[in-house]
Amino acid sequence: MTLATRTEDRYPTRIPAYAANRPIERTDPTVWSTEADGPIDAASLAGYEAKGFSIVEGLLSPAEVQAYWQELVRLCKDPELKRDDRVIAEKSANEVRSIFEVHKLSGLIAELARDPRVLDRARQLLGSEVYLHQTRVNYMPGYQGKGFYWHSDFETWHAEDGMPAPRAVSISIALTDNYPFNGGLMVMPGSHRMFLPCAGETPDEHYRASLREQEFGIPKQDQITMLAVDHGIEQFTGPAGSALLFDSNLMHGSGNNITPFPRSNIFLVFNSVANTLVEPFSAGKPRPEYIASREFTALTR
Amino acid sequence: MTLATRTEDRYPTRIPAYAANRPIERTDPTVWSTEADGPIDAASLAGYEAKGFSIVEGLLSPAEVQAYWQELVRLCKDPELKRDDRVIAEKSANEVRSIFEVHKLSGLIAELARDPRVLDRARQLLGSEVYLHQTRVNYMPGYQGKGFYWHSDFETWHAEDGMPAPRAVSISIALTDNYPFNGGLMVMPGSHRMFLPCAGETPDEHYRASLREQEFGIPKQDQITMLAVDHGIEQFTGPAGSALLFDSNLMHGSGNNITPFPRSNIFLVFNSVANTLVEPFSAGKPRPEYIASREFTALTR
Repeated sequence: MTLATRTEDRYPTRIPAYAANRPIERTDPTVWSTEADGPIDAASLAGYEAKGFSIVEGLLSPAEVQAYWQELVRLCKDPELKRDDRVIAEKSANEVRSIFEVHKLSGLIAELARDPRVLDRARQLLGSEVYLHQTRVNYMPGYQGKGFYWHSDFETWHAEDGMPAPRAVSISIALTDNYPFNGGLMVMPGSHRMFLPCAGETPDEHYRASLREQEFGIPKQDQITMLAVDHGIEQFTGPAGSALLFDSNLMHGSGNNITPFPRSNIFLVFNSVANTLVEPFSAGKPRPEYIASREFTALTR
Repeated sequence: MTLATRTEDRYPTRIPAYAANRPIERTDPTVWSTEADGPIDAASLAGYEAKGFSIVEGLLSPAEVQAYWQELVRLCKDPELKRDDRVIAEKSANEVRSIFEVHKLSGLIAELARDPRVLDRARQLLGSEVYLHQTRVNYMPGYQGKGFYWHSDFETWHAEDGMPAPRAVSISIALTDNYPFNGGLMVMPGSHRMFLPCAGETPDEHYRASLREQEFGIPKQDQITMLAVDHGIEQFTGPAGSALLFDSNLMHGSGNNITPFPRSNIFLVFNSVANTLVEPFSAGKPRPEYIASREFTALTR
């Protein structure tokens, strides 16, 4: 595969509203290899191909969940990190919501990204060597957790980071139990096959606001309705230690959380080394490297 | 049972914060009769006693759901009703959220309240003749539906309406499918056995704001946490036509709704004729009669 350039953009977005009415059918594959190439069996690969996601229960043991949870608490409490650009605080409360580029802040999480349970799955799905496009830990507190509106990650990575094609996979590992009612991820199975161009030009430094509350890169409501009616909605639920693997173009979102039960996860995005970033497709300058890495070295164990 | 008066208030609330730290154990029964007295069987009665709620699937037929849905659409579109105090609009959008005293606006809904499937269940649970304390239809649109924070209805009915004891039952009949992800009711099973006094004095005309967004009559966060840890959380899900019967003191709330799927229900509150309203226990003047009826005539078929 040759790299797309800005002149041959198969997934145009952030375009005028009148032009953003037509979904684009995805031409890239979703699964790039076979059962023989890694730990995921044929049935699960077929499920991922059809639905754009796959859930692995018990990817982490309870003891590992504990260890990562303590690591997260340590990072959230670190007074030096409070002033770090990589640390995003909740708009209303002054509480840490996400820490980006966390594999550089935590040896434990750097190791996890190289763990065969994780790395071999990413390699298998993407059919190549992979590198870390983005990593973060998320913490959504009880009571005040705000959700995230429907979006495709690839839309933003393409527009603002210059990711050519949706040949990337996100692995979200739950550090808390995910109930259907505490603001967990909702996905539209099968929605990854359609790319919804979004209306509007990306403002400069959009990422500063968008990490707290998205304003651009949001599909039109009637297109979300169409996807929801066609595909339905499923939720990522399960005990702490479960992992959700999902395609970069899967439509997803989350509701708020009025329950006392917080929600926390480790979020690792793997991109194929055959899909490295070019100039942003629909934005001025690229986002900072802690949000969209330009170190394309393949990960090894 | 003799009526409580303001001097013998077994459920004090809207009190200073320092005094609102201790939950009060409920002394009133939850189920006031037996299997012989109505359509609810012994197992379901025992479930209601223990959990404070009971779900009846298919209380309405699909054809009835259609008829009530059309009735709701008709009411929401009625230009004369738009200016009616009984019609509550969503704060952000200008869309109808609830219509109170709806049994006086719709013959169809007045009939439903007298339907043996509904009325006989209410009579059985409360062990007496019953009357309508409050009725409404609720409409929570897709995308913009805001939830309601945790609360006990009885706390408000006691404080602001003068309902002496929690001898009332709410019947919520779903006119849309309730998924776990479109802002449906969350309940804490068993929480009806504890009364959580709330802090703060009720402001005058509080109901005008509280119907849109509750500010008083909200338990302390650590007490909600305690209840949630002790009892867990369950959701009212199921196809349109399902009904939830729940005790007036059950702790409940709902999240927001970012899905395209709206949520709508008919809400009928039956109170025992042995529990009719007195002066408000913790407010100046009583709320309007369309929110808290003072017509105590027993309902008949």
